[in-house]
Amino acid sequence: MVDIQRYIQEQKALIDEALARYLPAEEHYPPAIFQAMRYSVFAGGKRVRPILALAVAETVGATADDVLPLACALECIHTYSLIHDDLPALDNDDYRRGRLTNHKMFGEANAILAGDGLLTFAFELMGDMRHWKAMPPERVLQVMHEVAYAIGTFGMIGGQVVDLQMERQEVDLPTLQYIHAHKTGALIRASVRSAAILGGGSSAEVEALTHYGTHIGLAFQIMDDILDVRGDEQLMGKALRKDAERQKATYPRLVGLAESEARAQKAVSAGIAALELFGERGAPLRDLAQFIIARDS
Amino acid sequence: MVDIQRYIQEQKALIDEALARYLPAEEHYPPAIFQAMRYSVFAGGKRVRPILALAVAETVGATADDVLPLACALECIHTYSLIHDDLPALDNDDYRRGRLTNHKMFGEANAILAGDGLLTFAFELMGDMRHWKAMPPERVLQVMHEVAYAIGTFGMIGGQVVDLQMERQEVDLPTLQYIHAHKTGALIRASVRSAAILGGGSSAEVEALTHYGTHIGLAFQIMDDILDVRGDEQLMGKALRKDAERQKATYPRLVGLAESEARAQKAVSAGIAALELFGERGAPLRDLAQFIIARDS
Repeated sequence: MVDIQRYIQEQKALIDEALARYLPAEEHYPPAIFQAMRYSVFAGGKRVRPILALAVAETVGATADDVLPLACALECIHTYSLIHDDLPALDNDDYRRGRLTNHKMFGEANAILAGDGLLTFAFELMGDMRHWKAMPPERVLQVMHEVAYAIGTFGMIGGQVVDLQMERQEVDLPTLQYIHAHKTGALIRASVRSAAILGGGSSAEVEALTHYGTHIGLAFQIMDDILDVRGDEQLMGKALRKDAERQKATYPRLVGLAESEARAQKAVSAGIAALELFGERGAPLRDLAQFIIARDS
Repeated sequence: MVDIQRYIQEQKALIDEALARYLPAEEHYPPAIFQAMRYSVFAGGKRVRPILALAVAETVGATADDVLPLACALECIHTYSLIHDDLPALDNDDYRRGRLTNHKMFGEANAILAGDGLLTFAFELMGDMRHWKAMPPERVLQVMHEVAYAIGTFGMIGGQVVDLQMERQEVDLPTLQYIHAHKTGALIRASVRSAAILGGGSSAEVEALTHYGTHIGLAFQIMDDILDVRGDEQLMGKALRKDAERQKATYPRLVGLAESEARAQKAVSAGIAALELFGERGAPLRDLAQFIIARDS
């Protein structure tokens, strides 16, 4: 796993540098909102979605640089969803990645507005033709629509709503699968798909990568459930076994730990199988898929 | 004022019909989020921003139909901003337009997500090329960027942040002007500008309409402040004099009622003056500007 870890570190550095450049500086007026936005964007996230986007762009023959504004927008969207998810009215979390959550640091009102600000900024970033050099505008537009749909009520928000409704309730596997596919899966799938479209992938390539994105999105979420049970609290930087305390439905709870691991492995294998048409070019995405279930945080 | 009231009613019907068609039906899964979104979108809003957008499109020689998805997106954005603004952590309002606010009806978590859903949906709607017929994609993209910027941290959200910071504080006129220009002004200005761009207005026309939008945005907000003091609670459908109770800065509080009225009138006159190059075609926008300060709710 040495090479993929180095690959991840390199892509992460590229993304962090670009995020620091794109996001408005904290000196702007009113500073509170820019501080709150940057606080959560630079809170030690793994950058899974933007790393996938860069790797996908390279897989379809574009460069990481070509899709950098998209990659950063995806991370802003992910961060917004975490900030709102952590709010007292939703999951009511005090810590994330070992640091106080946004509303604990900046107050609830600022956290709501910082989330709104990051979501809005993601579209501002994607919609700014100055970032896109020779990228055809219709492709940018298609990707903005793709992303908006994925994070809307038929995607991520739908998953959050059902997740909330199901707290302290008996949840069956189909409902859990709906939550996972929407709350986490939709944005991961859209990260892969939109980078493939922007990168100029053929229909066959976009289709193959859609399968890849769907499968690894699932694997990623099952692993999250597993890590909540057996993970190292220090490494995860948040209170674990919280899902169990809340009697929240998870894969381990519904199908057991061993079966959860088997399903995560199966999803990764299916994701890798979808990469066949890329041959050797598919190596980074293959290794990233493996890494998802090998990770310990 | 008979003609302009009829004009407003007709445009409003067009917008309400389009909103009902574009917004996902309440039967979709999970119904709670679609109910919450529709509840606030169809809560009796005046449709100021979309009506302006349609009128601007006609003024630059396009049709209302050409900009209908933009007009509806603007109303979704306005509604999202109201839902989040009413939340307990922000303005903590129980009523709006005579009905319970979104979080009072659906709970805080659903209200936060319904706001997120409407903001996201606005971009989904604008980004969907199926709605745009022959509209050039680069123009749609430009408008999405324009709108995102206007409602972001340098626009509407910036205004909300400063507004919150200034509660129960002595506010000077420049700060109040910042709040008004950003919290309300930016979206009204963007409604006018983006419809002008989409409608194919020339640079001179877009520039003239930018001035128009800036001035009437200001007039609109001063009128809102004035109506809070002297308005009819029944007509406004919300608790009035609330600004005063909260010691919130308003124009009447800072410069007096008579001077506020003079400033609103002056802003309307400046807005109308900016329409000169349109000649007779500018009539609806001229009448809309007049209507802004003649309204009683």
